Formats: sequence, C-alpha cells, structure tokens
Amino acid sequence: MNPTLEIFSQGEEIVTGQTVDTNAAWLSQEAIHCGFTVTRHTAVGDKLTDLINLLLDISERADCCICTGGLGPTSDDLTAEAVAQAFNRPLKFDAIAFEQIKAFFVRRNRVMPEVNRKQAMLPETATRIDNAWGTAPGFSLKHQRCWFVFLPGVPSEMKPLFLDYVKPDLLTRFTLQLPQLVTLKTIGLGESAIQELIKDIQIPFDVQLGFRAGTEDVQTKLLFPFDYPSAALTALVSEFSQSLGDYVFAIDGLGEVTDDLAFEVDKLMTVKNHTLALVETVSHGLLAAKCVGYDWLVKASYEQGVIQSAQAMGSAELLDTAKGLARDVQEKTGVTSVLVQLYSGGKEALRDKDQSINVLSVLLVGNRFYETNHTIVGSLNRKQNQAALLTLDLLRRYLQGKAI
Amino acid sequence: MNPTLEIFSQGEEIVTGQTVDTNAAWLSQEAIHCGFTVTRHTAVGDKLTDLINLLLDISERADCCICTGGLGPTSDDLTAEAVAQAFNRPLKFDAIAFEQIKAFFVRRNRVMPEVNRKQAMLPETATRIDNAWGTAPGFSLKHQRCWFVFLPGVPSEMKPLFLDYVKPDLLTRFTLQLPQLVTLKTIGLGESAIQELIKDIQIPFDVQLGFRAGTEDVQTKLLFPFDYPSAALTALVSEFSQSLGDYVFAIDGLGEVTDDLAFEVDKLMTVKNHTLALVETVSHGLLAAKCVGYDWLVKASYEQGVIQSAQAMGSAELLDTAKGLARDVQEKTGVTSVLVQLYSGGKEALRDKDQSINVLSVLLVGNRFYETNHTIVGSLNRKQNQAALLTLDLLRRYLQGKAI
Repeated sequence: MNPTLEIFSQGEEIVTGQTVDTNAAWLSQEAIHCGFTVTRHTAVGDKLTDLINLLLDISERADCCICTGGLGPTSDDLTAEAVAQAFNRPLKFDAIAFEQIKAFFVRRNRVMPEVNRKQAMLPETATRIDNAWGTAPGFSLKHQRCWFVFLPGVPSEMKPLFLDYVKPDLLTRFTLQLPQLVTLKTIGLGESAIQELIKDIQIPFDVQLGFRAGTEDVQTKLLFPFDYPSAALTALVSEFSQSLGDYVFAIDGLGEVTDDLAFEVDKLMTVKNHTLALVETVSHGLLAAKCVGYDWLVKASYEQGVIQSAQAMGSAELLDTAKGLARDVQEKTGVTSVLVQLYSGGKEALRDKDQSINVLSVLLVGNRFYETNHTIVGSLNRKQNQAALLTLDLLRRYLQGKAI
Repeated sequence: MNPTLEIFSQGEEIVTGQTVDTNAAWLSQEAIHCGFTVTRHTAVGDKLTDLINLLLDISERADCCICTGGLGPTSDDLTAEAVAQAFNRPLKFDAIAFEQIKAFFVRRNRVMPEVNRKQAMLPETATRIDNAWGTAPGFSLKHQRCWFVFLPGVPSEMKPLFLDYVKPDLLTRFTLQLPQLVTLKTIGLGESAIQELIKDIQIPFDVQLGFRAGTEDVQTKLLFPFDYPSAALTALVSEFSQSLGDYVFAIDGLGEVTDDLAFEVDKLMTVKNHTLALVETVSHGLLAAKCVGYDWLVKASYEQGVIQSAQAMGSAELLDTAKGLARDVQEKTGVTSVLVQLYSGGKEALRDKDQSINVLSVLLVGNRFYETNHTIVGSLNRKQNQAALLTLDLLRRYLQGKAI
C-alpha cells in the first residue's frame, strides 16, 4: 500500500472561484510520481475555524498533506495561526526567517513593511523551509499520523520549493516505490488525433496511459510500475514514439533532461553554433518571449506593415514575400538562420474564435528554404500561442533532421 | 447571513491531477453571483466510502452543495450509489430517464450500450434534471439541512445544465442577496506595500477586504453587502484609490468595463489616435505579446546588439542611449509615441533569481521624453514579465495624466 496524501489549498480566491486551483493538480501529479496515493483535495477560505477543523480531520486521515496558501503577510493569511491553534503549538518568532525576509527586501532596495514581520512567526517545533523565491518561508511538522508541509500559494514560489526541498525530503521520510513515468511531448497534434494514432497499441494492464494538453505542448504519459522491466518499457515507448512520429519533440523520463520546445531548440542551436533572427506576425512577440534567456536569438521584430501588405495575397505570393523578407533579414543581420511568419485569412478571422487562419512559416538556412503551413482556429490568444509554437517547431524539425 | 454552499468534485482524474478542476472555480463564481457564500471545495476519487462520508459531512455543514462527476455509465461512476447508501434512498429505475438516454443514442444513429442503463437508476424521491447535452441525467434532493444538486462532470454538459435549470431553481429555493464587488488593479506595488499604504483606512465590519497577486496585476478587492449604501461605497473606494495613488490603473465594479493593463492603454490610445513603436530588451517580446489584437502597436523589436552595447553603461549614458534610440525609431516609423526599454546589471544578473537588475523605460511623445527606473529581482521569467508591465505602465501613466 502506498502512503496516502491529501492536498489542502487555502484562500478566498480559490473558494470564490477567482483563481483556478492549478497548484492542486500540479502537486498531485508530483506526489503520484513520488509513489503516494492522492486521496483528496480540499480548498477553504479565510475562516479560522474552517482551517482548524480541516487540519484536525486530515491529521487523522492521511499520511501526508501538502498545504498551499495563507502564508502571506496580510490579515487574511491565517495558516500559521490555524496550525498553532489546531495542533497546540504556539507561534514563535524565528530570527533566521526574519533575517531572510529582511534580506529579500534589501535585494529589492525596499524597506520591509512592518506587516511582513508576521511571516517570521512559525508554530513551535516546526521545521522551517527557506524560501529563496519570496518572503514567506514554508514549514513542516507532524501531527497524529500525518506529516504536514506548508508552502506559499504563489506557483512560482511553491513549485521550486517543492522540487528543491520538499520532494527530496519526502523521498527519505517515506518508504516510496517510485513508478517510472515516460512523457512524449508533441506539438501540432490534438489529444484526439493522438488517440487515433495510438489506438492499435496493446497497453499492458499495469501501465497507465494519460494525456495532458497544456499551452506549451500536448503530453502523452505512460506510468510504469517501479519494477517494470526496462527492455519492455523501452519497447513500449518506442512503439508510441513511432506512432506519433515527427510530432514528438522530446521524450522525458528516459534519462535526458527535457523542457519546453525552446529548450530543445536551444540544445541544437548551441551545439551547431547557430544564430537566429525572426519576423513575427500572428504570434506578436510571443515567439521571441518564449526564447528568453537564449543567446542565439539575435533579433526579433513584429511589424504591422508586413501584416497589412500580406493580407490580400494568395498563397504563392505570400510564400514569395516571406522568402524575400527572410533573405532581407539574413543580409542585414548576418545570422545563420531566419524564421519568417506570415498569415492569410485577414484580421477579422484572426480575432474571431470561430474563424480559422492559415499560418505560413518559412525558415532560411544558408541558401535553403523550408516551409510549413498550418490552419489555426480558436481565440486570439490561442492563435497567438499556437503560431509561436508551430513556427518555432519548423526550426526544431530542421535541427533534429525531421520531416518538414 | 448568506446561505453557504460547497462544491464537491468526484473523479480519479481530478485527485490524480490529470485534470485541473475548472468546474469548481466556474461554479463558485456563479454561486457567489447568486448570493451564496462558498465555503469549501472538495475533490475525491472513486472510493465508495470516501464519497459516502463526504456526503454525510456536507449534509450537516452546508445549506447547498453542487456535486459534479461520477454520473457516467462505467463501474467507477459511483455518485448515485453513494447517495443511495449515505442518505438511505435506494436506487430506482426511472423510465423517463431511460427513454431520454435511449433517444440520445438514436439521434446519433448508435445502439445504446447495455452499461448506459445504469444512468437511469436514480435515488428514491430525487428530482431528475433532464440532460439535453449528454446521456447522464442530473438529480437533486435534500438531506439534513443541505440541498444537493448532482451534475455530470463534463463542462459542456454541466454548464448549460447549471445555467438553464439549476440556477433559476436555486434563486427560487433560497433567499439570496447579491453582494457588490469592487476591485482596484495596480502595477508596481507588492501585496505588503499595498497593505502598508492602506493601513490607516477604517474598514466597516461588513466590508470584506481581500488581495490577489497575479501575473498581470495586484488586485485589492472590496466586497460589500448587497444593500450597502452607494454613497458610502463610493466614499470607501475613493479612500482606497487615493491611498494607492497613481499605481491604480483600473477600478472594476463601478460600472466601467476593465481588463488588463493593455486593455486600459488601448482605451486611451484609440481615443487619442496614438500609434506606438517599441524596443524591448528584458521583456524579450512579451510586451508586444501583451498588446496582441491592438492596432496602435505598429512596430516592436528586440535586438541583442542593443542590449550588449547598453550593458557596460552608467545610468546617464544609458538614458542618453535610450533617448537616441527612441528618436531614431520615431523618425523611421512616424508613430506618435515610442517606448524604449533598456537595462543595466548585466546578463548574469538577469538570469540569476537572487540578483536584481535596473530597468529603464523611456517614452517619447512628440518632443517630450518621460522616463521611469525600476529595480526588478526574481527568476528570468518574473523579470521578463515585470519589465513588460512596468514599461507599458509608463505609457499608461502618460495617457491617464498620472505622475511619472
């Protein structure tokens, strides 16, 4: 039997529905990959008695509980107080936490507001979890059968704290048998298209198949038992990989470090000493934004004039224009590769979620052109994001030697 | 006192994190707009005893409960069975529900699988909720103090069922009074800085104050009772607005439609017939990406050369360079306004979450320059996002006639 784990989210913004609780889903997946069985999610608001009762219930029900939120400096942040009352561990001033909070403000050239002092008050005998990403330290403690971990609710603080500190700690604290997770990441295929491509694959009863469609990719996930034979694992993954073909831009869980599409592009741009300049239209800066931190992106631009002149063109003329633009940019910048993105369908279609547009991506490397065409539908923001991914994916296919 | 309402989501896909529970957030907002106080969200998987215990707990705790999921035809859909056992109301065959399920398949030219017969089994004395969007009928019933509503978990069935049938029914069943929500949206102030600025304001006991720090803004929220006098409401909001000063870029809930920062900028850019060109560094395309859909953004560019040449500069030289660039862009593009963003601190500091950088934003309108300086710290992605917002906020302050 795996140890059981519950997720507890605190905050009025969650129970009032102003924020969708994505932390709970993220933490659940992480916990399952550690070998826990996740049994329940609960979210409550800012009522102290609700928090206290819930903490007491969970302490008798679960082996582990990850709590997020309610650690901020303001009066509606009640988690530490609730823990103090529920588990009879009065809050104590933690001098090291206080120094860290002050240092956080010093780094930002700001004076620490008096209210932040509250964040240095931790329940007696709790273990502090240092937070290098924000002001609120986390903390952990055991009550009854349950090991509680309290983390800030801001995802950009919660996630690194969990990965860097909490996860390694849980792995030593519990006897966990880690299942093996392999994730095939794709761009350009929807979930139902993926299901269709893999429908003939025989999946053993003890392997769990799952899907996750996010903004950066669509993931096909295979969860194997901890003792699944490695040859059989490799064989099944390779069957999936062949069925999904060149849409797969990375496979996670076989040893190689993977991340988003820009990260995979970076691996090969750096190895091959490539530089890139790009002209965006539909993606409107978002393609450059996805490449933040990589030095091979030398120049990126968005110009309304380019869009307007491209709007009335047929597909042959559009392609010629894109090629001309690419050559222009190549001459002016001296980069080794140029991406140009144009679209047809008109501005009205771009903004109307029920109308589709056609996105043309052209890649110029040396004297060779490569091109892809994609029909995109959905809201303006969805079209913007898909266009950014699909244009960048042309470069990925070129670098990985895949079909274009 | 508003009646209390809980959301209960059933499904392994929720507790394992494969699906983010967007239903809970959507239903909570709907319930609050009806005048309920939402007190808790709970998600559990496919264990019958978990479901039964939770139903019994809720029946003693809440005035109303909306449950989603677990109404499907397969063996892991246990909601009706759990209700039958928890509330001692044996399942009975509902002939009308069965006809509707059969008709659903006939309309699709398919034969009804035998398993779907299960969906016509409803707890004794429950009120059936006809489902025109799928096979599973919903149902509702009262146990102890709580009115329970059971709906399918598929959002495309759940939402119309709630809006068309459940909501009108709840409005007659409960005495509900709609609260008034006012939200002050700011850029450039953290939650604790806000708390500090407003600490002297006397907040009446029946007004709820809340905060929400998101990627696009930091929100200060005031929730007033339905019958709060409008003069007193306006007076309190204006006290908050004056305390937060020119950081407030929009106030939601007083009649005007508001959205993110780019939306507020758009209102005035369009009225004043402005056009904009911009040069980004730290924000790396994200500022342009935030302005997607607005025609006044004529040209945006990111150039590594600009960054490299700016890296070794002192602040006076940095300012001169930014101004020179702005004038250059103005001449070449003929726009009415130019934004240039440069930074000092170096590339290493940009990527190191513990180091800060200084972001200089320069706005040129006609012959006049405006500038702001901000120290930004945090991960690369946080710096990128903050830089995009703060540079755009300079334009917002100019357009709204605020202090720069």
